[in-house]
Amino acid sequence: MSKGLPKRSEDYSLWYNELVKKADLAENSPVRGCMVIKPYGFSIWEKMQAEIDRMFKETGHSNAYFPLFIPKSYLSKEADHVEGFAKECAVVTHYRLKNDENGKGVIVDPDAKLEEELIVRPTSETVIWHTYKSWIQSYRDLPLLINQWANVVRWEMRTRLFLRTTEFLWQEGHTAHATKQEAIDESVQMMNVYATFAEDFMALPVIKGIKTESERFAGAKETYCIEALMQDGKALQAGTSHFLGQNFAKAFDVKFTSKEGKMEHVWGTSWGVSTRLMGALIMAHSDDQGLVLPPKLAPIQVVIVPIYKTDEQLAAISEKVDGIRNELKEKGVSVKFDDRDTYKPGFKFAEWELKGVPLRLSIGPRDLESNSIEIARRDTKTKEVFDLNEGLASKITDLLDEIQKHIYSKAFEFREEKTTTVDTYEEFKKVLDNETGFVSAHWDGTSETEDRIKEETKATIRCIPIDAEEEAGVCIYSGKPSNKRVLFARAY
Amino acid sequence: MSKGLPKRSEDYSLWYNELVKKADLAENSPVRGCMVIKPYGFSIWEKMQAEIDRMFKETGHSNAYFPLFIPKSYLSKEADHVEGFAKECAVVTHYRLKNDENGKGVIVDPDAKLEEELIVRPTSETVIWHTYKSWIQSYRDLPLLINQWANVVRWEMRTRLFLRTTEFLWQEGHTAHATKQEAIDESVQMMNVYATFAEDFMALPVIKGIKTESERFAGAKETYCIEALMQDGKALQAGTSHFLGQNFAKAFDVKFTSKEGKMEHVWGTSWGVSTRLMGALIMAHSDDQGLVLPPKLAPIQVVIVPIYKTDEQLAAISEKVDGIRNELKEKGVSVKFDDRDTYKPGFKFAEWELKGVPLRLSIGPRDLESNSIEIARRDTKTKEVFDLNEGLASKITDLLDEIQKHIYSKAFEFREEKTTTVDTYEEFKKVLDNETGFVSAHWDGTSETEDRIKEETKATIRCIPIDAEEEAGVCIYSGKPSNKRVLFARAY
Repeated sequence: MSKGLPKRSEDYSLWYNELVKKADLAENSPVRGCMVIKPYGFSIWEKMQAEIDRMFKETGHSNAYFPLFIPKSYLSKEADHVEGFAKECAVVTHYRLKNDENGKGVIVDPDAKLEEELIVRPTSETVIWHTYKSWIQSYRDLPLLINQWANVVRWEMRTRLFLRTTEFLWQEGHTAHATKQEAIDESVQMMNVYATFAEDFMALPVIKGIKTESERFAGAKETYCIEALMQDGKALQAGTSHFLGQNFAKAFDVKFTSKEGKMEHVWGTSWGVSTRLMGALIMAHSDDQGLVLPPKLAPIQVVIVPIYKTDEQLAAISEKVDGIRNELKEKGVSVKFDDRDTYKPGFKFAEWELKGVPLRLSIGPRDLESNSIEIARRDTKTKEVFDLNEGLASKITDLLDEIQKHIYSKAFEFREEKTTTVDTYEEFKKVLDNETGFVSAHWDGTSETEDRIKEETKATIRCIPIDAEEEAGVCIYSGKPSNKRVLFARAY
Repeated sequence: MSKGLPKRSEDYSLWYNELVKKADLAENSPVRGCMVIKPYGFSIWEKMQAEIDRMFKETGHSNAYFPLFIPKSYLSKEADHVEGFAKECAVVTHYRLKNDENGKGVIVDPDAKLEEELIVRPTSETVIWHTYKSWIQSYRDLPLLINQWANVVRWEMRTRLFLRTTEFLWQEGHTAHATKQEAIDESVQMMNVYATFAEDFMALPVIKGIKTESERFAGAKETYCIEALMQDGKALQAGTSHFLGQNFAKAFDVKFTSKEGKMEHVWGTSWGVSTRLMGALIMAHSDDQGLVLPPKLAPIQVVIVPIYKTDEQLAAISEKVDGIRNELKEKGVSVKFDDRDTYKPGFKFAEWELKGVPLRLSIGPRDLESNSIEIARRDTKTKEVFDLNEGLASKITDLLDEIQKHIYSKAFEFREEKTTTVDTYEEFKKVLDNETGFVSAHWDGTSETEDRIKEETKATIRCIPIDAEEEAGVCIYSGKPSNKRVLFARAY
């Protein structure tokens, strides 16, 4: 394992890319813009999935699976949707290859052209709402609360591991309701589920808010979102939940008979988070030595490294470690004993630091004598020698809790520091140029102003925070009246 | 819920299709050959996935994720592989759509043609072995034990829900080893994992065996398989595990430095099971009333139906049921209380029968008085009134165990009955025409004979059973000498 991670302060972007590769999280594949998620990275994603999936089920949702392909014509059925999604996508035009007559491998068989091209799903509203038409007849079929875990493809021109890739993994929830209010409540609930997951598991403080019209999902009436701040001061949209109104129900003619016997279009929502969360997790907490993982998502929470010279020493240490591992496993702590004889302790320390394991225990012959062990925290890089007579298991679980909280509060304080309230466009530009982060400012509510500010400063309105207070003010750009502040930032 | 499932004895194929749809397992999608897996069906698949995934992890494997797309040229790198897989597959040729100038929705943008076409993965050996080249340098990097859960696409002309669909979900394991023996052991181990899963969880007895050369995976040196028998006497290949030799290592130039410092090609395996297992599960156990699920894979193990006329009665029953549910949940039993007021008990009984819930409890005012409950078994359709003073929870867990075993032994006995040993081609044909099932016969070991038998009888060699005993005999077709029997059957 070669070290030498670039410093965040020198080249944040390079630091990120190198970290993702060196910590064995992901790498670029031979297919342009598609990534390979490596086992260690995937095991973090699996932990995320498990928690999110549990939260979905606790809120009454079931999983299902819909086709990878969408008939081209479906994309045109919802007018706004096609504008947003029909552009950059993978198009399947043929269904067969054949041997090249000139012996040059295989070629596309021109006789196997599809009558209608198929699009690899960039998102599944269209094919799902087409299906819902036959699933929904009566109010008794509602609400329909469905999620799918799937891969999707958007042909991105500039890609970046986890943050923006041509293919990515995600979940997409698609629900149908009898009333407008119920659908709105569902969208808000799912934004809250995402926020809880981000804060409690990823240790990532997020702002809950509403997107402006120009940042809204193509086909939605309202987009709720969670926005987080990365260490370079750029914002990252971590999850979105859309109130679709009756748009897709109308486009796909999905109606139900109400209790009163009336035929009505149903109300819809959709919501999703993706492997982009991996990017957020990495960028929010990690440092120049590598990954810093919140214990609740760390595939390995504790690594134990033996310090020894002779086989006898290793045998004695291993015996001790067996007891420790069992004790920790009983408490639900995931432990790895790194007894590889092909690497030295120093190498192992650096590797587990790079991989963000929250706690590292090391134990040598002298520790055996004194019945103690060294505990090193990944987040604070502090070490202590712990007396094993005092009960290691509860010490470790306490420390894991403490680390989880500490990582969160560090990120929270960082965000507070990097959030500035401004009242003039001069201040606004100065903050963006010097300190970056979130900028809270008045805005006149028009897309024109939003566009101009974006053009001039590269900052976009990340959201209108849910908890924004009514406050009379004037738009920093146009000087027109405004009644609440919105959050601007440069963003991923 | 409309009933009226066709009878198995009248039209097995129609019975299967109708059952899959009516029990809310899956349905055809608007995309040719692709299915929608409905929530109830998906929840069974999730239970399968969870157990299989656990077994993979217990045998040292990690999950990862590789791209959906494979560059066309990759398919040509392994000579046999391209013959087997490069034919019927979805080909991505373009990456953009644009608005039709004549206003007819969207059209493929001819300017966005890919330089090299991408194939939607029919299986991932090529892209994975390409990746392994950079992951494997030394013996210290081996073994590499990786699995992925993914969707794959094979452009099938004749499709059938779960059994053969254009897109399906599966897992594909891909491992790399330093020695031939280790790779063979791995392939055998994974066949055994599949067999254990099929027998212990699906209650499906399987024959472990080796495929003949003509039925072997394209690119493998040996294919191990598990074969099961369906109620119509047709065999179904439920899982395969391939010893790849050094084929893919050579095609993608994957070498490692051994402990002795020598450069060698690595040895590979791949193995997979898919949503086809859902088809096997359904076809093996279900009856004319609907699905019969083994308790270990049933999303709902116990359904409780209240029998009542007045709201007071329902309230009293619900209170009693609350206690019962908690008692059962504590024992890890999944319970559903079907208190929908929109359907009558008879309708509910039929619905849960159709959906294969192993145990149905029903309780009415008179049961409350006598502190008893009616228990109905799905598998045997027997009912009994149980005295609640005798401890319901252990009764239920005992019954669930019993049902799991009973479903297995019923399928096992059926298979034994339907397995015939023959010594002449006349007998062979007679068995296939009259009784169907597995036919154990001597074969001369040539593909020519195998092909002729297939042409004449539609039966294929399902496998050479692992436990086949040495036995001198003559081939039923050619009369040439043979030293062991193989299993023939008509198959899905």
